[in-house]
Amino acid sequence: MTGSGAFAGRFALDYVYGLTDRSGKRFDEELVRIGYKGSALAAPQRFAGYFELHIEQGPVLETEGLEIGVVTGVQGMRWFDVEFSGDCCHAGTTPMALRRDPVPAVAAFLAEVNAIGDMDRGRSLCTVGLLEAAPGSRNTVPQSVRLSVDLRHPDDGMLDRMEARLVEVGAEMAGRFNIDHAIARRWNSPPVTFDARAVAAVSGAVRKLCLSHREMVSGAGHDAVHVAAVAPTAMIFVPCQGGISHNPRESITSGQAASGANVLLQALLDYDEMETP
Amino acid sequence: MTGSGAFAGRFALDYVYGLTDRSGKRFDEELVRIGYKGSALAAPQRFAGYFELHIEQGPVLETEGLEIGVVTGVQGMRWFDVEFSGDCCHAGTTPMALRRDPVPAVAAFLAEVNAIGDMDRGRSLCTVGLLEAAPGSRNTVPQSVRLSVDLRHPDDGMLDRMEARLVEVGAEMAGRFNIDHAIARRWNSPPVTFDARAVAAVSGAVRKLCLSHREMVSGAGHDAVHVAAVAPTAMIFVPCQGGISHNPRESITSGQAASGANVLLQALLDYDEMETP
Repeated sequence: MTGSGAFAGRFALDYVYGLTDRSGKRFDEELVRIGYKGSALAAPQRFAGYFELHIEQGPVLETEGLEIGVVTGVQGMRWFDVEFSGDCCHAGTTPMALRRDPVPAVAAFLAEVNAIGDMDRGRSLCTVGLLEAAPGSRNTVPQSVRLSVDLRHPDDGMLDRMEARLVEVGAEMAGRFNIDHAIARRWNSPPVTFDARAVAAVSGAVRKLCLSHREMVSGAGHDAVHVAAVAPTAMIFVPCQGGISHNPRESITSGQAASGANVLLQALLDYDEMETP
Repeated sequence: MTGSGAFAGRFALDYVYGLTDRSGKRFDEELVRIGYKGSALAAPQRFAGYFELHIEQGPVLETEGLEIGVVTGVQGMRWFDVEFSGDCCHAGTTPMALRRDPVPAVAAFLAEVNAIGDMDRGRSLCTVGLLEAAPGSRNTVPQSVRLSVDLRHPDDGMLDRMEARLVEVGAEMAGRFNIDHAIARRWNSPPVTFDARAVAAVSGAVRKLCLSHREMVSGAGHDAVHVAAVAPTAMIFVPCQGGISHNPRESITSGQAASGANVLLQALLDYDEMETP
């Protein structure tokens, strides 16, 4: 999404060019190396519309036995780093009463945080993907436990309430267990609503092709998130096996790919007619 | 404790000689290199007694303002590897209801496991030192969470009850959250009770020297654990700053060292008189 972010003016060109990967390779130098550093401005050209076809990367279409997802937007996402810290000490020589162990606080915190995913059942999501005690020795009471929280919802107001609950639970458990804590917001990607006419073109194409379908909000980020700021945008989802993506087991059938491509073609043709005066 | 374990017959000599460190250095080759590979048998000689002076490695003596710990034995210790596993999936695209996330099960498990440390308040200990979610990505529901549990108590029967509770809680939470789990016992070091006459010699020495003291059970392992199997054994603890050990901040005063050394000397002299016919 770096390229689409630069195109849509979300990222300054110098920022993008200066990005490095873990081995220190610079974005601009690698563009030159592969022959992709062109002379055209990164500023957005005028586009009549932008349609993106993608696998769902989730299990909903497969679970419901549907062929196409008509994507009406992308949910918002907020990332947090959370740390609970106490006093590191010897597991064999420190009585329970003299410990400041972050683990019980984390246990109580995690139980409440998971419930944030049910605040708006079916639409709110809450995930703890990183969880690690430090220093990480089996006979040492941890100094700290660090974890990540990923909150998602299609509505920014609901995300505000989910974040407020997260902050509240952190303070509550730190106080109850006499443990230090810190919660830092690392990233905020607001919800995106796609262009009504572009989405209508996708809906019309799906009906014309007699494909089973549902409307849905994308859970993952896509180039469409950035491009939606500068051009009428919509997306088309096809099911993928087990909802698996970014993984060697990612898989779709050629039939699923063909259905997606047919919807993309039909939507473009219909949208072109809608837009032509 | 490898040397004392070989001496006491707990480890076979070939096993000890063949041990390697992380860089591949062999135990026997390093003994030769530093000039410590002697010709005397590793089998235990007959000893009248064994007295070991050590820092407490815990905060009890310092917290209670006492000068000497009269160590009556070493608590038992059992180590467990615990894993809860579900289905790895995308944090943004997988509805809460379609997840098998191990984190909520771990949260409920940790809350109950910590309470095992209070089953015999003041004597039972329970520590989760390792805790890590895998694969460890902030926008991925973890496939699994692995953690360690360290249980300690001076009485083997109580350790049996603590272990039974651990196993029970693991099965309960795996069932409640529909998550797979495994609990494996990695190590079992039974409690050791020191020789009554050797401990009495230490007690007598402390009283003769008018030092403030208490009886206590060692929380950490020591050479005395192995030697106690082949000779009358006792230990003497002195306080250490903040209970910190195996750390550059480990610290005791020269006064504390002198008190410990005086108790060791007096105990040896008294024990020698007790044992001489």
